Amino acid sequence: MPWERLTSEALKYARVVDHYVYDSLGISPDRLRESSLHLFRAGGKRVRPLIAFLTARMLGGVEAESRAVPLASSIEVAHTFTLIHDDIMDQDDYRRGVPTVHKSYGVDWAILAGDLLHALAYKMVTESVERGLTVEGVYRALRALSVAAVNVSRGQAYDMQFEETWDVTPQDYLDMVRLKTGALMEAAARMGAVAAGAGYEVEALMGEYGVFVGVAFQIRDDILGIYGDPKVTGKPVYNDLRRGKKTILVLKALEVLAREKGAEAAEEFKSMVGPQASEEELRRAAEIIQETGALSYAEKLAKSYSERARRILAKLPAVDEEARSLLDELAVFVVEREK
Amino acid sequence: MPWERLTSEALKYARVVDHYVYDSLGISPDRLRESSLHLFRAGGKRVRPLIAFLTARMLGGVEAESRAVPLASSIEVAHTFTLIHDDIMDQDDYRRGVPTVHKSYGVDWAILAGDLLHALAYKMVTESVERGLTVEGVYRALRALSVAAVNVSRGQAYDMQFEETWDVTPQDYLDMVRLKTGALMEAAARMGAVAAGAGYEVEALMGEYGVFVGVAFQIRDDILGIYGDPKVTGKPVYNDLRRGKKTILVLKALEVLAREKGAEAAEEFKSMVGPQASEEELRRAAEIIQETGALSYAEKLAKSYSERARRILAKLPAVDEEARSLLDELAVFVVEREK
Repeated sequence: MPWERLTSEALKYARVVDHYVYDSLGISPDRLRESSLHLFRAGGKRVRPLIAFLTARMLGGVEAESRAVPLASSIEVAHTFTLIHDDIMDQDDYRRGVPTVHKSYGVDWAILAGDLLHALAYKMVTESVERGLTVEGVYRALRALSVAAVNVSRGQAYDMQFEETWDVTPQDYLDMVRLKTGALMEAAARMGAVAAGAGYEVEALMGEYGVFVGVAFQIRDDILGIYGDPKVTGKPVYNDLRRGKKTILVLKALEVLAREKGAEAAEEFKSMVGPQASEEELRRAAEIIQETGALSYAEKLAKSYSERARRILAKLPAVDEEARSLLDELAVFVVEREK
Repeated sequence: MPWERLTSEALKYARVVDHYVYDSLGISPDRLRESSLHLFRAGGKRVRPLIAFLTARMLGGVEAESRAVPLASSIEVAHTFTLIHDDIMDQDDYRRGVPTVHKSYGVDWAILAGDLLHALAYKMVTESVERGLTVEGVYRALRALSVAAVNVSRGQAYDMQFEETWDVTPQDYLDMVRLKTGALMEAAARMGAVAAGAGYEVEALMGEYGVFVGVAFQIRDDILGIYGDPKVTGKPVYNDLRRGKKTILVLKALEVLAREKGAEAAEEFKSMVGPQASEEELRRAAEIIQETGALSYAEKLAKSYSERARRILAKLPAVDEEARSLLDELAVFVVEREK
C-alpha cells in the first residue's frame, strides 16, 4: 500500500466535504437536488479539497483546517459543476463508474444541476464567515474561485477548438491544461492559504504549487488514457486515441514524426487516431508514441512539473510539517498513480 | 412619451454597463468571447442594472452610484447567463430579435458562454474593491448574488417541472416566479444598497422592493405573452398559450372553470392550450381567460405587487429624491409596459 497515509487523509477530508455538501444540498425541487448530488454519490478522489485542507493545516494548523471546510467543499462543488457540463459537451456516457448526469437526468437537468452547483460554490464561500473566516478572507477566496472558474471555461473552450484542428502545438496544449485543470487546483491551494490567514505572497506561491500539481495530474491522466490498465482505470483501452483527443502524447509524437520522417509520416499518424481508426491502427499509434519518445517525454514533463511543485513547497513556512510532507507526497502521487 | 425620463436614465446606465462588460470580456479564445457577447449586442432593457444604480444613488448619492458599476454589471451578466441557458432548455430560437446563442453557436458553446458569464459575474463583484467598495461590501454583494443564483436555478427547475403536469396552483406559480424572476431583481436592489453602504435592514427592505417589482414584471410578461401586440412585443400572437406555458392566467382560468363549471370544462380548457391546439382553440382559450376573470385577476395582482414595492420605497431614507421617484416610476412601468 504505497499511498496508505495519503489515502487515509484524503478519505477523512472527503467525509467532511461530503457531509457539508449533502447538508447544503437539502433543497427543493427533489429532481434538482438528486441530479446535483449524482456525481458526489458516485465517489471521486476529492484531490482539490485534499489540497485545500492540507494547505490550511500546513500554514495555519488545525484551526485553519476547520475554517477551510466551506472553502474546500466549495472547490469540490465547483469542480463537480465543470464535470457535469464537460460531460455534456464531450458526450461522455459514464463517469466514476455510473452514467453521467445528462445520461441519467437529461441534458436540461444536467445544465441546471451544474448551474446550481456553480452558484452553490460561491454561496459556500460566504458561509466561511460562520467558521471564523474574516470578510477579507472571503474577498480573497472569492477572487481565487472566480478567476479559476473564468479560466476553466476558457480552457474548455480551447479544448473544444483543438478537437476540430490539427493546428495545435504541445505548448498550446500545456497552456490549455494550465487553464482547464491547473486553475481549480490553484484555487484549492489559494483557498487553503486564505483559510490560514497567510499573506498574499504565500497564497500566490501555494497557487503555483496547485497549478504545477494540476498540470502534472493531467499529463499523467493522458498517459493513463492510452497506456493505463483498463481494469484499473475503468476506461476502455486506447480510449483517448479512439476519441482523437489531442493530448501531449499525440501532439509530441506528431511533432517528432514531422521533423524526423516528414509530412507524409505525420499525415499517416493522424489517420491512425480518431473514431474512424481500426483497433490495429490504434495499437500501432500507441507504439509510435513510444517509438518517437513522446511517451517518455510526457513522463519526464509530468515529473518536472511535480518537482517544481515540490520545490515551492519546500520553501514555504509550515506550522505543521506532517501536512507539508503529505502535500509533497501528493505531488509525487499525481504522476505515479495508476488510476 | 410617457416613460421618457425613465428610459433616458436606463439608456445612460446601460451604456456604462455595456462598456464595463465589453472591457471585461476581452478574453480568448475569440469564439468564447463572441458567444458570450452575443445577447449583450442584441440589446435588452437592462432593468436590473437600472435598479442597482438607482438604489445606490437614492441611498448614497453619486459616489455610491459610481461604486455600483461593477455590481450593476455583475447582475446583468448573471441575468444574461440565465437567459442563455434557459433558451437551451426552453428550445427558444429567438431572443431580442436575434437567434439565441445556441442557435448561433451550438449548444456546447452556449453552455460554455453561460458558464463563463456566471463566473465573470462573481469576478466583477471582487473588482468593486478597485472602485472603493469595502471587503465587507464584497461579502454582502457576494451573498446577495450567490443566494439569488441558487434560487434562480431552483425557479427554473420548478418551471421545467410545471411543464410536465397540470398539478400546479396559482400559488405554486407565484412561488416559482419569486425564485426565477424575483431573485435577481432582489439581488440587484440589494447590491445597490450595499454600494451605498446601507445597513442590513435597509438592504433587506430594498431586496423586498426588488422581489415585488420582479413578480409584477413577470405577471405583466405573462399578460403580454397572450394579449400583447405582436408588432410591439416581437413575439407571435398567443405565443405562451401555444407553448402550453402554465402562467398565472392559465392556472387562474383553470381554477375558476373547475370551481364554477366543473371538471369537464377544466379538461376541455387544458386541451385548448399547447402545441397541439388549433389557432381557433388558442383564440378561444384567450377569450376564456378573459371571461373567467383570470386576466383582470392577473392585472390586479401585478398592480398589487407594484404597489407593495412602492410602499416600501416610500418608507426608506433617501439622499437623492429624484432616484427614489425614478424607482417609483419603474415599479409602475413594469406593470404598464406594452413590451
